[in-house]
Amino acid sequence: MKLTDQIAAIPLFQGLSRGEYEDLAMIVVDQVIRRGQTIFEEGDEGSGFYVILSGRVKIFKLSPDGKEQILHILTTGEPFGEVPVFAGEKFPAHAQAMEDSRVFFFPRPAFVDLVKKTPSLALNMLAVLSRRLRKFSSLIEDLSLKEVPGRLAAYLVYLGEGKKGGSEVTLEISKNQLASLLGTIPETLSRILAKLTREGFIKPNGPRQIQLLDRKGLEELASGERRLA
Amino acid sequence: MKLTDQIAAIPLFQGLSRGEYEDLAMIVVDQVIRRGQTIFEEGDEGSGFYVILSGRVKIFKLSPDGKEQILHILTTGEPFGEVPVFAGEKFPAHAQAMEDSRVFFFPRPAFVDLVKKTPSLALNMLAVLSRRLRKFSSLIEDLSLKEVPGRLAAYLVYLGEGKKGGSEVTLEISKNQLASLLGTIPETLSRILAKLTREGFIKPNGPRQIQLLDRKGLEELASGERRLA
Repeated sequence: MKLTDQIAAIPLFQGLSRGEYEDLAMIVVDQVIRRGQTIFEEGDEGSGFYVILSGRVKIFKLSPDGKEQILHILTTGEPFGEVPVFAGEKFPAHAQAMEDSRVFFFPRPAFVDLVKKTPSLALNMLAVLSRRLRKFSSLIEDLSLKEVPGRLAAYLVYLGEGKKGGSEVTLEISKNQLASLLGTIPETLSRILAKLTREGFIKPNGPRQIQLLDRKGLEELASGERRLA
Repeated sequence: MKLTDQIAAIPLFQGLSRGEYEDLAMIVVDQVIRRGQTIFEEGDEGSGFYVILSGRVKIFKLSPDGKEQILHILTTGEPFGEVPVFAGEKFPAHAQAMEDSRVFFFPRPAFVDLVKKTPSLALNMLAVLSRRLRKFSSLIEDLSLKEVPGRLAAYLVYLGEGKKGGSEVTLEISKNQLASLLGTIPETLSRILAKLTREGFIKPNGPRQIQLLDRKGLEELASGERRLA
């Protein structure tokens, strides 16, 4: 396969133009990494980012007593090191090949030059990532809609315990924290709150104040006897 | 709240530098949009992208007979129009306010100038989006690990029906298509296939060839009697 085609097959770059693939092909370094070989260490300068062509790479931290904590195991098509490299930070963890692997390395200085010279590259990559984010967040929504409304209802019922019906409860944590706690993202949580409001279960009275209008309904959602439409 | 603080609170821009928020504040247009007002129409030039400060916006298409198909309903903090605008395309759908809303509008020409002048803005936004993508994909993995292995096992058992034990099956669709079909992303599908391989259920023999080593185990996964560790 031609180098530009291999670059075009990488999800991070999907949908860029032919010219942009050629620009990327000019700066890429094709590397073979042996099983067990270290790719970078925590604290190293983020000299560039990687994409896996084949093989497997683990990203891990070492505890003070030298124990390995694996954060991610990455395979074909997946980038690594891109977040610190884009942000101009040091690598926050170690990377090591778990089997003989082939990776594409994109050196930061050449990549930054490319972005300066052709802002369309950066804009198109922003479009690629935004499109993937949108797809991912609608998938999270689909997956969350089965369970998150029930868990949220359970939390609201818990907050309302010992209070009278129709009474107001106060979220003790931010919506972002609540979203993580429920295993979803803030966008989906907002939509579920809007749905609970529309269907008459609750009424938001402020950024953190929620009035429980139908406690029995919330209890049924929490127990799974009932589901949101 | 100060303009720069309002911009800093937008997820799309989270983690940028103070200077970059000030640059964005220089080009932003603060708009109030009345309930029912059209923001853009399908086919309009992507003149800039929007972020919702308050209110609700629907993104929709119109069928040939004028019926509305809602694609997204967006609320506070969410961007819209950013994918076509980054990619330099026309708007692919209509946008209309569902209630009185306030949005920030970022005009494309000024945004492109900013990217040319300060490549760090684009790079930092790439870091922001990459970080969110990584978070989203690990969340999808957590959510998928409950159900996707079972559904994948069911599909493999189906492919192997009528064949002898230990026989090889061929995936009839690409891994990307299979991932969507199973309600997950290719990254998670790869990891689940790797797990099934490691635990001795299957053995990949090629990009689309999979040998079924433990059909009884796969059937148990499919029926939910057994789960992946």
